[in-house]
Amino acid sequence: MKFVSFEKNGQSSWGILREDEILDLGMVAENLKSFIAAGFPDVDRLKNLSTNISLDSVTLAPVIPNPSKIVMAALNYFEADSDRSKAPEYPVLFLRLAESQIGHGAPLIRPSSSEKLDYEGELAVIIGQGGRHISQARAMESVCGYSIYNDGSVRDWQRHSHQFTPGKNFVGTGAFGPWMVSADAMPEGPLSLVTRVNGIEKQRTDTSRMIFDIPYLISYISTFTPLEPGDVIVTGTCTGFGATRRPQEFLSAGDLVEIDIDGIGTLSNSVSVEE
Amino acid sequence: MKFVSFEKNGQSSWGILREDEILDLGMVAENLKSFIAAGFPDVDRLKNLSTNISLDSVTLAPVIPNPSKIVMAALNYFEADSDRSKAPEYPVLFLRLAESQIGHGAPLIRPSSSEKLDYEGELAVIIGQGGRHISQARAMESVCGYSIYNDGSVRDWQRHSHQFTPGKNFVGTGAFGPWMVSADAMPEGPLSLVTRVNGIEKQRTDTSRMIFDIPYLISYISTFTPLEPGDVIVTGTCTGFGATRRPQEFLSAGDLVEIDIDGIGTLSNSVSVEE
Repeated sequence: MKFVSFEKNGQSSWGILREDEILDLGMVAENLKSFIAAGFPDVDRLKNLSTNISLDSVTLAPVIPNPSKIVMAALNYFEADSDRSKAPEYPVLFLRLAESQIGHGAPLIRPSSSEKLDYEGELAVIIGQGGRHISQARAMESVCGYSIYNDGSVRDWQRHSHQFTPGKNFVGTGAFGPWMVSADAMPEGPLSLVTRVNGIEKQRTDTSRMIFDIPYLISYISTFTPLEPGDVIVTGTCTGFGATRRPQEFLSAGDLVEIDIDGIGTLSNSVSVEE
Repeated sequence: MKFVSFEKNGQSSWGILREDEILDLGMVAENLKSFIAAGFPDVDRLKNLSTNISLDSVTLAPVIPNPSKIVMAALNYFEADSDRSKAPEYPVLFLRLAESQIGHGAPLIRPSSSEKLDYEGELAVIIGQGGRHISQARAMESVCGYSIYNDGSVRDWQRHSHQFTPGKNFVGTGAFGPWMVSADAMPEGPLSLVTRVNGIEKQRTDTSRMIFDIPYLISYISTFTPLEPGDVIVTGTCTGFGATRRPQEFLSAGDLVEIDIDGIGTLSNSVSVEE
């Protein structure tokens, strides 16, 4: 099952997506996060109701527009020729603010203060019931769905100090969509991830190459903070983003970034420059 | 004027503090953040109403229990003998999650996964109207009040990677209180900051030694993210915390950490060990 968050006529809502039609569920719960928190009440009945809006007629929002937290893993993929015995001991984690998020189809914003906007295609995990001190063995029970994330990074601001915070939190840089696919509807995996800029492939990997897998990340993160319904864990990227290329490549106005992940679809955003 | 957030009989509320008495304003706005967002409506009348609960009868909550964001500066004080010409070019910023916060008098929690809980006494700035791209010249108009923050840090988890996130976000480590003093009621400054552990002075500085001052921090942060009512900027610490001492000193069960800042008061929390 696919869930979307969207805006139509200036109103925020959410619903179930079937083909190119949405069943608007804005009257059932305030937003997708609150529906997740309530444990997907009555979803087996809801999913059979007739859709009532076309996907074309809405503006997609970030899948979860208002998560309590967005925990991002940096890098986190072995390259094809990596020595897997040389993995780091712990994942590299940073936080992204909800204020930085945009939905599928919205413009990625290259800020007026930088010319170094870059892309990173990543698999996003959405937490269902969550909790604290979750074991790796039980971690997958906490996942209610998956989506795609473009961890848009302003590289010079990311390197102003040793902490990535500023460069990972510019407005209009965290693209999250197009929708959430419920965990039960995902293929077995490994899932391939491909990022293209203007149709040219820039990143390619698959989830079998993840250094810290989803159960590890959930268990590690829940050691320090409670995971809550609708929280988002973005699981990291592989090489091939602009800053790793020689010469380096950054995004310009009009560039189109597309990220495909098996079983989910394609997240697309074009680039606008802040006035 | 002083504002407090608190719990009484299991209910969350907030109000104005006068001497040791509170005027409960839970019926006027949902919480202190929403009152700030509304622009302190009718505050001149409210401040003259009779108080109706004693401070003793409530449990203080974090001053803003639910900020949209908490932006923390690392370090950020010149030592007495510093060469001020050698300041770093940019502040070091990281994010703290609201889930890590506690109020004045609540226990700081040393987690079961570490023996390296440390303290950092800091001045907290609370944002009133906020916005994006705020100039340094106008930044102070965005500050509605001040409080004290203990940026409790789990040092081994802070150093698991180059990103501080895990060690700065353990549950029960971000003490924020005891109250907010409105900007108009603060002394001119510089303000002295003193941190004591079990009555012994460990940190002492004053705000004239800040490397990146409040207008700079507000302007820099608002370049990448919009500041919103009730957002918290925690302005950094000076040397003298446990990890800087030789031998290093970490907090144990029963230790009492007190932080004094001129014009605000004292934030006190004793240490409990997670079971």
